[in-house]
This record gives sequence, C-alpha cells and structure tokens, in this order.
Amino acid sequence: MKPAIAVLGGDLRQVYLSRLLEADGRHVMTWGLEKGGAPCAVPLHQALEARVLVLPLPVWRDGALNLPLTDTRLETEDLWPRLRTDQLLLGGMTGELPPRLREDFGLTLLDYYDREELQAANAVPTAEGAIALALELTDRTLCGSRCLVMGFGRIGKVLSDRLRALGAEVAVSARKYADLAWVRAMGCAPCRTDALSGALGDYDLIFNTVPALVLDQRLLAETREDCVILDLASAPGGVDFDAAARLGRRAQAAPGLPGKTAPRSAAAAVRESIYHILEERGEYM
Amino acid sequence: MKPAIAVLGGDLRQVYLSRLLEADGRHVMTWGLEKGGAPCAVPLHQALEARVLVLPLPVWRDGALNLPLTDTRLETEDLWPRLRTDQLLLGGMTGELPPRLREDFGLTLLDYYDREELQAANAVPTAEGAIALALELTDRTLCGSRCLVMGFGRIGKVLSDRLRALGAEVAVSARKYADLAWVRAMGCAPCRTDALSGALGDYDLIFNTVPALVLDQRLLAETREDCVILDLASAPGGVDFDAAARLGRRAQAAPGLPGKTAPRSAAAAVRESIYHILEERGEYM
Amino acid sequence: MKPAIAVLGGDLRQVYLSRLLEADGRHVMTWGLEKGGAPCAVPLHQALEARVLVLPLPVWRDGALNLPLTDTRLETEDLWPRLRTDQLLLGGMTGELPPRLREDFGLTLLDYYDREELQAANAVPTAEGAIALALELTDRTLCGSRCLVMGFGRIGKVLSDRLRALGAEVAVSARKYADLAWVRAMGCAPCRTDALSGALGDYDLIFNTVPALVLDQRLLAETREDCVILDLASAPGGVDFDAAARLGRRAQAAPGLPGKTAPRSAAAAVRESIYHILEERGEYM
Amino acid sequence: MKPAIAVLGGDLRQVYLSRLLEADGRHVMTWGLEKGGAPCAVPLHQALEARVLVLPLPVWRDGALNLPLTDTRLETEDLWPRLRTDQLLLGGMTGELPPRLREDFGLTLLDYYDREELQAANAVPTAEGAIALALELTDRTLCGSRCLVMGFGRIGKVLSDRLRALGAEVAVSARKYADLAWVRAMGCAPCRTDALSGALGDYDLIFNTVPALVLDQRLLAETREDCVILDLASAPGGVDFDAAARLGRRAQAAPGLPGKTAPRSAAAAVRESIYHILEERGEYM
Repeated sequence: MKPAIAVLGGDLRQVYLSRLLEADGRHVMTWGLEKGGAPCAVPLHQALEARVLVLPLPVWRDGALNLPLTDTRLETEDLWPRLRTDQLLLGGMTGELPPRLREDFGLTLLDYYDREELQAANAVPTAEGAIALALELTDRTLCGSRCLVMGFGRIGKVLSDRLRALGAEVAVSARKYADLAWVRAMGCAPCRTDALSGALGDYDLIFNTVPALVLDQRLLAETREDCVILDLASAPGGVDFDAAARLGRRAQAAPGLPGKTAPRSAAAAVRESIYHILEERGEYM
Repeated sequence: MKPAIAVLGGDLRQVYLSRLLEADGRHVMTWGLEKGGAPCAVPLHQALEARVLVLPLPVWRDGALNLPLTDTRLETEDLWPRLRTDQLLLGGMTGELPPRLREDFGLTLLDYYDREELQAANAVPTAEGAIALALELTDRTLCGSRCLVMGFGRIGKVLSDRLRALGAEVAVSARKYADLAWVRAMGCAPCRTDALSGALGDYDLIFNTVPALVLDQRLLAETREDCVILDLASAPGGVDFDAAARLGRRAQAAPGLPGKTAPRSAAAAVRESIYHILEERGEYM
Repeated sequence: MKPAIAVLGGDLRQVYLSRLLEADGRHVMTWGLEKGGAPCAVPLHQALEARVLVLPLPVWRDGALNLPLTDTRLETEDLWPRLRTDQLLLGGMTGELPPRLREDFGLTLLDYYDREELQAANAVPTAEGAIALALELTDRTLCGSRCLVMGFGRIGKVLSDRLRALGAEVAVSARKYADLAWVRAMGCAPCRTDALSGALGDYDLIFNTVPALVLDQRLLAETREDCVILDLASAPGGVDFDAAARLGRRAQAAPGLPGKTAPRSAAAAVRESIYHILEERGEYM
Repeated sequence: MKPAIAVLGGDLRQVYLSRLLEADGRHVMTWGLEKGGAPCAVPLHQALEARVLVLPLPVWRDGALNLPLTDTRLETEDLWPRLRTDQLLLGGMTGELPPRLREDFGLTLLDYYDREELQAANAVPTAEGAIALALELTDRTLCGSRCLVMGFGRIGKVLSDRLRALGAEVAVSARKYADLAWVRAMGCAPCRTDALSGALGDYDLIFNTVPALVLDQRLLAETREDCVILDLASAPGGVDFDAAARLGRRAQAAPGLPGKTAPRSAAAAVRESIYHILEERGEYM
C-alpha cells in the first residue's frame, strides 16, 4: 500500500503540493494550511500518524514550525516527542537535526530542498519572476535593452538565456574562465567580475544572483541614473541598498520568487523531489 | 534651423517624448503635461506658435484634446481657430479632419500612429506587457506551459516568438494558409481558426489578438477551469467577458499596454515616426 | 471519389511528392521520374488520363517539360494537344499560358508555386541550407560571429531569426522604415540599405536575399578579406561575383536550396499548396 | 619581455593558433606545419629554444609527435633530450609524462585540453558541426523535426539548445534527475535513459553524445527506417554501427568536429587556454 502523506504547514506551495499529491491518487492529510484552502484537512494528532510527513520550506521560523497559513503555533520542542522512528520527515532547508533527536529519538529528517533537481527546477520561476519584476520597474522594453546578469550559477544561466530570448543584449559576469566560456557558448557577452568597474554605465538593467556584496557603493556610483537593479540572491543579498537609495538608484531585492510567481510549478518540483527521495529509499511509490 | 516642436497634452508617452526630443538637441515646448513632469513647459499661446505641433495618442477624447496629465480642458472647437496653415499638426489615431478645417482653414493634420513602423514597434511592449500579465495571473511557469495565441498579426507574431523563447509550447490560430505556414516556419504549432473547437481544453493560457468576438460562450466553455485568458485586441475585444465570468474563467482585457509597460520605448517609437514624417516632407531634421 | 493525380516529371521534390500523396491514400500515377525511384510509374498515355496533372517546378526548361530524372524529352507543343479541358494542370512558375491554349483549347493551368504558403514554407529550407553552407565555408563558429542579412523578405526574416538563435550577432539591412522596426522587434540590429557603405567591414558573414545588384565592386571592396558571402537571391542574384573573385573574397551563389537541402519538406509544402488549390476549387479532397 | 612561443606540429588549429598569436603581437615560431601555410616557420633546433612550446592536440600519435601537416617524423624519444627544464611544454590530451622525464629530466608538460573553458568552447563547434551534418544527411528541415539528444553533458547542452532554436522538437535523455530537471528548464522534453525503449520510433534524428554503447542492436531496431543517427561521442562511440548497417539505418560517426568545422574558433579557444595557463603560472602575458 502507498504510504499516507501528511503535509504540515508551509505556504502556498504546500497547498498546491497537497492538491497534486491528491490528484496522483495518494492518501493525503493536511494540517496548518487552512487559510490557503488546502484539501484533506485533519486534526494534528491524526496528521502525525502518517508514514511520511512533509514539513514547510523553510521548515523552521523562530524556533517553531513555519506556519504562515494558520493562526496556530507549533514549537519545535513540542513536535519532536510526538514523532516516531518509523516515520520519514521531509523538510526544506532543514539544516542538521540536533544530535539528541537523531541519536536518542532515532528520527530521520531529510531535506527535499537540498537536491539539485529541485534547485534547477526553481531557477525557472525565479528567472520568470525576475523578468516580470523587471518589466514592471523599467520604462523600456526588455527587447533592445542592455542587461547585466551577475553570476552564472543556476539562476544566472536560466535568466540570461531568457533575457537574450526576449531580445535583450545580455552580458554575464563571472569569475571562472570556464563560466565565461559557457557564457559565450550560450550567445551572451562574458565579462570578468574584476573588470566590472568601468563597464557598469552601459547597462539599463542589472540582475545580481551572487550571494555576496558585489554591488557596493563604489560600483553602484558607476551605474546609470536610470538603471534598474534587481537582487535575486538569498539574504543578505549582494546589493548595498542604503548606498543605492542615497544614489537614487531604483534597486529592489526579490527573494523567494518561485513561491510567489509560480506556486503550482514550485509545488510540482517539490513533489518530484519527494518522490525521488521515496524511490531512492525503496519506499513504495 | 530645426523647426520648434510643441508637445501638447497626452499621457506618459508624450512626457518621455518631450525628454527624448530635448535630448536630441531640438527646440521643445510642452503644454498640458504638468502632472507628468514634462520639461520645457510653456503657456498655451506660446506652444501654439511652434512650427510642428505633436498632439496626443489618441488625439481626442469626448470632443476635446486628450489631456489626462492636466486639469485644463481644451475643446476641439477652441483649438482650430488658433492654428495656422503653415503649421504641421501630428496626432495619433486622428481619423479624418472635418472638410471645413482641411479645405476652409487649410490645416494639415497627419497621423503618426498610422505608420507601419510605429505599429511594429508597439508590438514589442504589447507582447512584453502580455507576458508580465500572464506571469502575474498564472500559478505556473510559462516554461512548459501550453499557450494558444489567437491571430498572427503584428502582436501575434511577436508574442508567439517570445512565449516560445521562454520555453512554452505555443500554438497559433489563424485563418489564412499563408499565416499557418509562417506559424510553422517560426517553430510554433499552427491551428486553423475553424478547428479551435475541440482543442481548447489543451491550453493553460490563451492570448487573443483578433479584434472580433472569437472566444464566445461556446468556445469558452471548452477551456480548462484553470485556464487564464488575456485579450490584447483593441476594444471591444474578442472575448465574451460576461460568459467568462459566468463560467468562472480568469479572463482579463489588457488594452493600451505599450504606454503602460514601456512608455519610454513607446515614446521612442513615436519620435521615430515623427522624424520619418518630417523627413518625407522635406522638413529640416 | 478522390480524383486520380498524375505527377509528370520534375526533380527529387516530385519523387517525394508522389510518395507523400500515395501515403495519403490517393490514387497516384507517375511518369518521367524513374531515375529518382518514384512509385506508381505508368506509361505517358495512362498518366495523361488523370483528372489532376502535377507538372514540375519550374515547369518548363528550353521549350520542353522540365525532366531531369528521365532521358525522355517532351516538347511543350506535343503536350498540349493531348490534354483535356476537364483536367486540372498544376505547375510551378508557370507564367501565363499562351492565349491559344487558354482560349482555344480551354486548358486550365494553375501555379502552385505562386502561393504565399508555399513561399513561406520554402523560406525554412532556404535558411537552413544557407546555414549549412555558411558552416561549411567559414572557419569560425556561427556563435559569436557577426552576420549581415541583406533584405528582410521571407528568407531574410527566417534566416536572421535562425542566425540569432545560433548565437550570432545579426544585423539586417532594409530600405523601409517598417522593415527596420520589425528587425529591431525581432532582436536584430537594423541597418539602412543606404548606410551599408562604411559598415561592411564589421561582418564575418554576409547573406544577400535581395534580387538586385546590391553588393557591387565598391561595396565588396569594403568587406573584410576573410568575409564569406552567400547569395540566396534568385538569378541573376545580387552579388558581383567577378568583382568578388578579383578581390579574393569567398563568395558563392546558392540558388534552389529547398530542393537540395530538404526535398521531403519541400515536397510536403508543394502537397499542401496542391490540396489548398483543390479545396478552393471545390474538388473532393 | 613576453616569452617566445613555438608551435610544433598539429593540424589546422595549430596553423590558426600561430596566426592568432602573431596577431596578438607575440614572438612566434612554427615548425612542422608547412602544408598548412603557418607563418614564421623555423628549423626545429631554433623552435626548440623557445620558452613556451605548444605541442599538438592530441600530442602523440604512434609514439611520435602528431605531425599531419609535414612529412617529417619526430619520435617521442628523440624530442625529450633536446628540451630544457626551464621550458614550459603545453600539449593536448597529454596524459601523464613518464616519471623518468618528470623526475630525472625535470620537464614540465601541461595539458591545455584538460581545462573546462576549452571543453566548453569546443562544445559550440561540435554542436554546429553536428547541425551541418544533420542538414546534409536528412531530407527534412530541422524546423519541425523531432530530435533526440542522448546525454546532457557539454555537447548535449549546447546541441539541444541550438536544435530547439532552429525550430525542432527536442527531447533529451539523461540518467540523473538533476539533468532531467535542467532539460525541462531549458525548454526541452526530458526522457529517462532507461525509458528510451518504446519511444525511439518517434524521432527523425538521434544525436548520441554519451561515450558508452547506448544505441545497441535492440534499441536501433526500434528506430524508424528513415531515422538519421549521428554519433558525436569520442571513440569507440555509443552506436553499434554494424547493427545499424544491417538494419539499413543511416548512421554516422562524427568525431573531431571542432577542428573540421571551425578551426579558427577552435584555435582561439586553445589560445585562451594557453594564456590562462601562463597567467596562472605568473608568466608575463
């Protein structure tokens, strides 16, 4: 028999996830998602009986389960004693489980976010969300505009591809020679990170994807007055927003785009990750 | 000497237009744009002395000049007597000038909107604005979604190209065999307009560009419940919105996207048209 | 009953056409295609009994039917008297039928090549064939190379789209403002035809699609020594090949690409045209 | 002073490399490239005095230096004793230097091919060469054809991107979930390698990039009769060509495309690698 899956808390992605799992014909229970209209809501004690427990992404917030779609609060410390060693706990950005739980309680907590296929899949809604934001913030068309994408990791790869496809002139900055070769192979203009100074005045739009302070006051001062700057890196991000404000630049941080732009697609990617984890552990799918 | 140009009224596009003309080193005067922060504002009588008068797009609204960025009103009837036969009047969507003005007064009113290069240029911000709206309205990524573009005129051409570039599966409906051949040549799936019925349930997103009622109640009933429908055709558009509301479909009209999405690019296209008109008339550029 | 179709002569496209028509379940007869291995070969007198006769593309060569795949010769003058007024003659690039045949004999000859859907469809194999040739002739990758496409008709549109998609920097020259606006809308760099002089030294590859002498000695002298030049315009083409040879430029004419590059796709496009003609004439399909 | 560079042997890429180095203003000497028309030819003893020696790619062939563009032969054993410990030897696919040379003679041999930026750069001419071959071998247009790319390494990534850009429907097979997610993110259809059986009959073209026998007799038998198969993997490749011949499939191995398709671009990539090696070793650039 397929194991019962309980989805406990989280945001709109977990609501969609519940629906997708249900549509797959699985035995689903949900708890802590009532404001999102998730199906199959059950009391907590019932949800905690499921073989597989899907926790939020990110799983914790201020020492409690991350529960934006309910008014209840569930402390981490209150959750552990109610779990069993034969349950599979799946959470996003879990970090290490305290040794006490792992060793004394024997609990198994796996991170579904820490899988390359989920991160790759998330790069798409992030890029699309960045494009939507850019369209909103600029007074130009992307077609014909000069864009700089800082960093050529997952998001940089997808975003530069999409911007070029929309007709923009796209430069990508990176440090490694191999990345710069890839940038060229993908039809964009490579730019060494250490050569950005002096070239920044060329761009109508700058998208940062590097999780380190790259756009500091000195570099920001080189950008054009009407330049729009989007920071897609996770907190604390890569843009000195105070300096940007002093300089009058239009700069905006845009974290967590997948859940906002395309919660359904983001949920589908979480589902895939969960299925792959179950499959790799020999669980009946 | 380059002729003085006065920009009288209009929306954000005319504000940007003033700035672009000024940046080109031209003698610019503006009137009726004060809420938009246009440069070179002058009293009306002074503006009316310019050799070239740029009127709004669309030029009229309710029998008066289209003046959304000022509290003043200027009746059509009050404007004509103050103009001279040696002036060049340029307006958008002007229609025919009453014979009295053309023949008795000898005024020359040309339509800068009625030029293929402007309409082609406008297809880009329209397509980009439609993409921004689609990203906002759907809970999916465009990448991997199934899109139908109805019509293969200017907007249909650019929009289908961009959607495909973003990774969507794109079908385009058209009536003419030649258009269907072009759809295929551009890498999209052709679909005969008269064969839409029966296929509409395939699409996550439907964009209409045809200025005629194509999505009536019968066809709307065939779309999927979670289908998002955008109508880009000019009023009265091509979607039965009442029927869509009854059926619970997410349908939205999106007129006038260029001025909203990318007023600067839209203004640049107006400027090009104006320069081409002046050039073709042998005016000093 | 579906009318019998006889395919008389032509090149590899007609061979493929016969197979496609046969695969559609039609009653097919072929004559004059034996070197191409066409199916359903019959004697001429039998083929001439069919309701629909498909003639070659181009239909004539030196006063006779265009018969490259047989050793027989069939004079125009010998063909007419053997045809009936109730037959439908379909040929490619037919030109006008002599009045005698049209009026005295009452024959009906239609041109399947003179249809926009066929010409649009043909732009694809032409563009792909041009890309294959360019890849063969240059010592560079197209990705990163600077290409100029002269003309923005059907072939210019498809070719510039494909070159850009392969990572080239693409400029397109055209005369009309509207075409230049479209070039920009499609993400390429517009260039006025009358402004080519002075800019030609920028390009690694030049593709001409304009059927008029555009690349004369003066302009050729401005191209780079290692520039590769392809002329895709129909004869006499748009490149002064003698001047190119004197200057040592690598220039090549490339006519008739669809039949060479992709005879099967070219045949499928001919089939579509023929079906559309039959449909428009109310013939049973 | 910039160190003198000698280019010893190799194919057309080394000829272009010599020209590119010379155009950069470097002190270049060449030997063993006379049939390719390389500049700066000198006698061997003189070339061997250079600070930096660029050897062929691949460096050896049958125990001698790889010298396709000269009639001379230079045995490995004859080369070593003539080299000095202060020289930098750069070769392609060098493998390990025998310990005797490394330890006793103190020679330094580095592999310029074993750098990610070169391999990334090489993926582009490989993909373009594969497209040229595919265009030559098929009777269809790539636009609209159904392509399968086996493997999503460097070549698979670039090739699938280009095929899609040309209007093909592209599926990519891979084993890893992360690769399959990337395939989808790039707008292609993912296909698990272990699910190929049963789906192979869908494709007009199959490109293998996996260096292992993936297309064996059993799978080949599932392909369509008119399917064209290209093997881009390095020897021994991934296609059972004997089985393909027995089945009448059009299958072709296509090794070494960069040097054939785009020797100039391939040489530019080698030059970059060499410069990066020199830079990382602190050599004056």
